[in-house]
Amino acid sequence: MTAVDDRQTKMMRENVPFAGVLGVEVVSSGRDEVRARVEWRPERCTAGGVLHGGVIMSLADTTGATCAVQNLPEGASGTTTIESKTNFLRAVRDGYAEAVSRPLHAGRTVVVIETDVTDAAGRPVAKVLQTQAVLRG
Amino acid sequence: MTAVDDRQTKMMRENVPFAGVLGVEVVSSGRDEVRARVEWRPERCTAGGVLHGGVIMSLADTTGATCAVQNLPEGASGTTTIESKTNFLRAVRDGYAEAVSRPLHAGRTVVVIETDVTDAAGRPVAKVLQTQAVLRG
Amino acid sequence: MTAVDDRQTKMMRENVPFAGVLGVEVVSSGRDEVRARVEWRPERCTAGGVLHGGVIMSLADTTGATCAVQNLPEGASGTTTIESKTNFLRAVRDGYAEAVSRPLHAGRTVVVIETDVTDAAGRPVAKVLQTQAVLRG
Amino acid sequence: MTAVDDRQTKMMRENVPFAGVLGVEVVSSGRDEVRARVEWRPERCTAGGVLHGGVIMSLADTTGATCAVQNLPEGASGTTTIESKTNFLRAVRDGYAEAVSRPLHAGRTVVVIETDVTDAAGRPVAKVLQTQAVLRG
Repeated sequence: MTAVDDRQTKMMRENVPFAGVLGVEVVSSGRDEVRARVEWRPERCTAGGVLHGGVIMSLADTTGATCAVQNLPEGASGTTTIESKTNFLRAVRDGYAEAVSRPLHAGRTVVVIETDVTDAAGRPVAKVLQTQAVLRG
Repeated sequence: MTAVDDRQTKMMRENVPFAGVLGVEVVSSGRDEVRARVEWRPERCTAGGVLHGGVIMSLADTTGATCAVQNLPEGASGTTTIESKTNFLRAVRDGYAEAVSRPLHAGRTVVVIETDVTDAAGRPVAKVLQTQAVLRG
Repeated sequence: MTAVDDRQTKMMRENVPFAGVLGVEVVSSGRDEVRARVEWRPERCTAGGVLHGGVIMSLADTTGATCAVQNLPEGASGTTTIESKTNFLRAVRDGYAEAVSRPLHAGRTVVVIETDVTDAAGRPVAKVLQTQAVLRG
Repeated sequence: MTAVDDRQTKMMRENVPFAGVLGVEVVSSGRDEVRARVEWRPERCTAGGVLHGGVIMSLADTTGATCAVQNLPEGASGTTTIESKTNFLRAVRDGYAEAVSRPLHAGRTVVVIETDVTDAAGRPVAKVLQTQAVLRG
């Protein structure tokens, strides 16, 4: 298990307030890959002690956006999520969910990000594909 | 603006702990339609004071699941989200986001839920289509 | 059952050659709604005499693009599909599949189209949400 | 460029009639990976000489289903596509589109298939994630 990067985590939470509420911890962040996790906790669950699907989608949207902004074309000022689709593969009942986002396509108008979410044992939890629009000016 | 239903909100938060962290308030809940909202607040935002996409997806997943369990076939014990796709149409910068979930298809093995999210002015914010698997036993 | 519009069908097939191979017949085409269908035929099926999912997605993509180009902002030259997601609700074993596409959002950079596919009895067959990028120049 | 497998192609077209209309050619087919392609031709295009998005989705749906049936749990009789989502990454204007489908998750009730579509130069054309329901009896 890789360690959490406290400095990167602090930066993300300052930039994205909801990441703090959600408890996102950044493991690493670079152009090719952004990795972060959220610990399982009772208050982050849906019924039955299962980590809420919204937590997993929020985590993936956060790592996805963080990856997208590092893959912008020259002259771009930011990104906004156009659409996001998640396939849920396995419930998380303890440990944590870890998301790793990678650029699938970095174009002039859109960036497509692929995110794999796994549990603490490394088993697939969810797969997310999302499109970020490139903002200018 | 319709009022929040305090009793339904309390029930949902007891059943789905993350709905409390997220600040979900239930407006109404029935077999044909489940309606709930989350207020805009700084701590629920991504960069730039925009309500985080994860908040919107979490809200919609919560109303969607609540709608799905009211549309189960006989003998079913619950549902689990298989997949969810969101198209984001407009940023929310104040007021609230309100989700209304309706059953598009209620079958023996899956329930498909359509969720429309609007802002306080009633403008479209997001459209979500998700599939819930029917659990038995 | 509404009639097929032979002139519109001919125009679409001239513009979109694959629509001819697929057997798309246009019922009506306007800014607010584009309606077209494909007849069930053995050669359009997957195993078991069920209309192929690809036929349904191709039909919806064709009506969706036709609707999108009628909802372009000033100065735009065309559209290209960024992403498309289909929920399949019912198999088509005879008659035809009819798609109706409507604009859900027409912005400066993207147009989002919602398409409902029904069978000859009017029962829901599929629901498609797709994003079209606005091309310029 | 790998060769087309004529025997497998013939089998697929006998089983899935629309694969013949579409011109699907199977390269290889196994439990871990199904690979097939469709040649670019004018009659398979949308406006502007671009291979129709429906052709790409139909190809991917065909390889995806072929992969899913090879990953069924014991006692299952077949599959049916519940949902499919495609991100389009690049237009195909010549050569061919080749799809390779792999199982992302093979469960008791659903099989999730990931399909990558590339052009003749091996560049990414589309990414498809789809869910197949497991049929019994």
